[in-house]
Amino acid sequence: MPAVRLALAQTNPVVGALKANSDQIVEFTRRAVAAGADLVGFGEMAISGYPIEDLATRPSFLRSAHDSVLALATRLKEEGLGDVPVIVGYPDGPFDPRLEGTSNAPTAIAQNCAGVLYGGELIGRQAKFHLPNYSVFDEYRNFIPGDELIVLRIGDVDVALAVCEDIWRDGGPVSRVSSADAGVLFVINASPYERDKDDIRLPLVQKRSLETDTVVAYVNLVGGQDDLVFDGDSVVVDQHGRILARAPQFEEHLLIVDVQAEAATPPSITEGINRIELPKRGGAKPPLASDIAELPDDREQIWNALVLGLRDYVEKNGFPSVILGLSGGIDSSVVASIAADAIGADRVYGVSMPSRHSSDHSRGDADDLAERIGVHYRTEAIIDLVTPFETQLHLDGLAAENLQARVRGVILMGLSNAEGHLVLTTGNKSELAVGYSTIYGDSVGGFGPLKDVPKMLVWELARWRNEAAAARGEVPPIPENSISKPPSAELRPGQEDQDSLPPYEDLDAILDAFIGRRFGPQDIADLGYPPELVDDILRLVDRAEWKRRQSAIGTKISQMAFGRDRRLPITYRPHG
Amino acid sequence: MPAVRLALAQTNPVVGALKANSDQIVEFTRRAVAAGADLVGFGEMAISGYPIEDLATRPSFLRSAHDSVLALATRLKEEGLGDVPVIVGYPDGPFDPRLEGTSNAPTAIAQNCAGVLYGGELIGRQAKFHLPNYSVFDEYRNFIPGDELIVLRIGDVDVALAVCEDIWRDGGPVSRVSSADAGVLFVINASPYERDKDDIRLPLVQKRSLETDTVVAYVNLVGGQDDLVFDGDSVVVDQHGRILARAPQFEEHLLIVDVQAEAATPPSITEGINRIELPKRGGAKPPLASDIAELPDDREQIWNALVLGLRDYVEKNGFPSVILGLSGGIDSSVVASIAADAIGADRVYGVSMPSRHSSDHSRGDADDLAERIGVHYRTEAIIDLVTPFETQLHLDGLAAENLQARVRGVILMGLSNAEGHLVLTTGNKSELAVGYSTIYGDSVGGFGPLKDVPKMLVWELARWRNEAAAARGEVPPIPENSISKPPSAELRPGQEDQDSLPPYEDLDAILDAFIGRRFGPQDIADLGYPPELVDDILRLVDRAEWKRRQSAIGTKISQMAFGRDRRLPITYRPHG
Repeated sequence: MPAVRLALAQTNPVVGALKANSDQIVEFTRRAVAAGADLVGFGEMAISGYPIEDLATRPSFLRSAHDSVLALATRLKEEGLGDVPVIVGYPDGPFDPRLEGTSNAPTAIAQNCAGVLYGGELIGRQAKFHLPNYSVFDEYRNFIPGDELIVLRIGDVDVALAVCEDIWRDGGPVSRVSSADAGVLFVINASPYERDKDDIRLPLVQKRSLETDTVVAYVNLVGGQDDLVFDGDSVVVDQHGRILARAPQFEEHLLIVDVQAEAATPPSITEGINRIELPKRGGAKPPLASDIAELPDDREQIWNALVLGLRDYVEKNGFPSVILGLSGGIDSSVVASIAADAIGADRVYGVSMPSRHSSDHSRGDADDLAERIGVHYRTEAIIDLVTPFETQLHLDGLAAENLQARVRGVILMGLSNAEGHLVLTTGNKSELAVGYSTIYGDSVGGFGPLKDVPKMLVWELARWRNEAAAARGEVPPIPENSISKPPSAELRPGQEDQDSLPPYEDLDAILDAFIGRRFGPQDIADLGYPPELVDDILRLVDRAEWKRRQSAIGTKISQMAFGRDRRLPITYRPHG
Repeated sequence: MPAVRLALAQTNPVVGALKANSDQIVEFTRRAVAAGADLVGFGEMAISGYPIEDLATRPSFLRSAHDSVLALATRLKEEGLGDVPVIVGYPDGPFDPRLEGTSNAPTAIAQNCAGVLYGGELIGRQAKFHLPNYSVFDEYRNFIPGDELIVLRIGDVDVALAVCEDIWRDGGPVSRVSSADAGVLFVINASPYERDKDDIRLPLVQKRSLETDTVVAYVNLVGGQDDLVFDGDSVVVDQHGRILARAPQFEEHLLIVDVQAEAATPPSITEGINRIELPKRGGAKPPLASDIAELPDDREQIWNALVLGLRDYVEKNGFPSVILGLSGGIDSSVVASIAADAIGADRVYGVSMPSRHSSDHSRGDADDLAERIGVHYRTEAIIDLVTPFETQLHLDGLAAENLQARVRGVILMGLSNAEGHLVLTTGNKSELAVGYSTIYGDSVGGFGPLKDVPKMLVWELARWRNEAAAARGEVPPIPENSISKPPSAELRPGQEDQDSLPPYEDLDAILDAFIGRRFGPQDIADLGYPPELVDDILRLVDRAEWKRRQSAIGTKISQMAFGRDRRLPITYRPHG
């Protein structure tokens, strides 16, 4: 079987930053060409970043994206890179939705495309067939589906293209790949990290290789984009599903591999297929080392996802540093540790904000943490700030408890405004789910690294991080006492979480069933939990939903209000 | 032509409140039957409320909704209302998405149905064909499309059904209605209010009546649901598009009308049509008065939408009262006035929170407003609360300006916690769009009535409300001075909005082009605005998007994190 050298460019684009992303593509292409690649492929929407959400409905943005692709093709040629085909994901448009007949998404004017750049031109584009519209995906809302498959003949190997979801569903491109007699299926993706997702993704790729009798090259984006983290983990498998090459998770990587593919024959079918023939690039093929990354264990993967998610939020939004309250508790200790791993301790500012209810051990643990990690650290006692409110407004009970949390929020935002830090909030998923926090108090902040991390997992991650440090001969960052002591909000004397909440083991398990698996109350009780406990927890969740009603929405009187119908991605700042 | 008496029940359901919504349906049906109706129809999802968002993906919720419909049918019969067909909107399921072949929405397990209740049973259900997935609608995400049309023969008239979007698109039920030879097309809707939407909706209904040669009965929901307000405005037009009956906007109403429809003939086609024959109910037909509501002018409609949106947010979420800061400025004056119209001045609490920069006229205007409207009113000077922060944290400049706004937020939330009020935030759309507000400061609050109201419109509404009061011989609620003085945030000496912002005329026009019409910078300049002005404003919008990044999101590591992929409607509290 003929050989072909594939390059999978696992890049970290920024949503909306067309110019910077194009620069990145040129740079990776240069490296791939130097390494003798016959074909270079980038992730889904590598030129615009992913997800672009409602930007897909802006004609001016689509025109800019289209123009960027043309400019990129020109530039690749000018830089002597025009003789290798480059597959690059981008949004194309604007198209007239009436012409395209997308009756259920009349505002969709874009297609999610894989463009083929060669010889200074965009010589072909394949639009994604299957547009996911569940979980974090809103593609059917924003895109018009495609219906044509590209098969690129490179010398004597046929390479079929697919875009992400197209290989997750039967029908569409995948069903045509076998009959198209392709040797390679090249799939460009923007597949976000989820716990255990590699347990689904790799077997899927392997299944498709067997079904289509092709080499499957799967290239993914990497990097944090708002609440999503793309984990990379790009992979190439042969016709039998065996791994030929695999990129590491959570970092940019250029994965280069030689594959043996079925020789191209005269095409048996052409309907619905755009066949493009290109000569195989000549030139030297430097020898390649095997490049198969090992996946670390689950806890390390999660830690790495949280670190990259925070780092890219800080960097892509241009914050110089972060600031957070350090209470000596497990949540703030873990967040500080993630932040130091993400951007370096020198860019992390901790503030201890003791109240009259803060215990000595809390202050001691916070001091200890700050010293272990080496973050900037100051103490701002809140008593002289809280008392005037209590006195003037006559607050007591719950209102006074919340007041302490809100005064801390005002301190952090004041320091943020004065010194430029991004405020980190430290709440975990269990706490948020049951509303065990103060609105406009400890919930203040631009990014919450533990927002999707249940409490039991926070402890697990803390232990893992300390063990990893110990294994490297470093000081474990998180004080043992912060891990082992019973958690407390310390808003009143002697308060402990378990006075108000069920044991975290049960809480987390029941929340996982309710939120993660969409179980109803009866389904959860059927797992063996006492119905009263289930009921108590679901009441807390309902109550938390109700509490969240106190963050502003407002009556909509126009097509385009803010909020729901204006889903602008976070890092899009084309004008400033 | 034979006559048939139609009842269109324009009700205000609460999302998730299956029991209360069912009670409402029984009550309206009883009134309709007493009035001699041959057919009673309720709005889309009248039994579950609309929109149910991700509740549509919860099997336990769908089972409850389905059971509620069966129980409702039984109850109608038991109460002697079983001999009139009742059309009621509800979500049905759970269905297996794999069986239904909805390849792009694998999490959809529900259908958006019109159920026909008769004789104690659910005798037919028609699922919505066209699932809107743009603007505020996420239906293709959450529902499986239908493919069968119901034609109900009632005595000698054939009544075809449709669900909302089905009449907005060609194809689907509408295309089959003519060939089905129906005499009446009965459409159940959940169509939210937007400015000037009646200029589109009524002509559409009229167009469909002409196309299908039927009487069209269009029944809509009414009521506020989070950021949406359903305006009712149910209407019946004859075969020539002439209005036979029209319900008022923004209130519940039972619209009853006699229509003359084509006599039913032996069916010409039956494929894809579920034909159900029912006897026409006997009994007395009390005489009917003509019932054609007049639409008020645009400003009054908007005011009514804002009033109902706020009222239902307060009532459906169970808040006893609202609280807001009164600055003497136009925004807070208008919000206080809306609140008083919505829930009565006795449930509105105003707080004047003067700083050292507050002018005498501000305090005077706030006092004047409170007295005109008759709200509860107190003054909480912020100077003794602000100074300790300034001193301890050494804040000045912008950080000190924001501090004042945040201290006000802490006061309002403290009073909210202590006394149970919902905090209202008073920012308008122009201000929010350009970020002219303080995060965790004046943005604090559960509901912002002006969130989608541009500044120029705020002034217009204030003038309209005062004129309306004067015309009724009442005291105009809003002090003339609050309307005529130049707007100021009063966070530093002598500050005025126009020091930092372009004139509001230009700002609002450019924001409308950018946000409302999705124009790009060049498109806006082509309207005749100086490119530098356009550029300045778009930079402000980008900056505002960036500022919003300081409200917490966090890295997602699971299928079901909070936020984007957990779209729980606000008033769903089935467990508490």
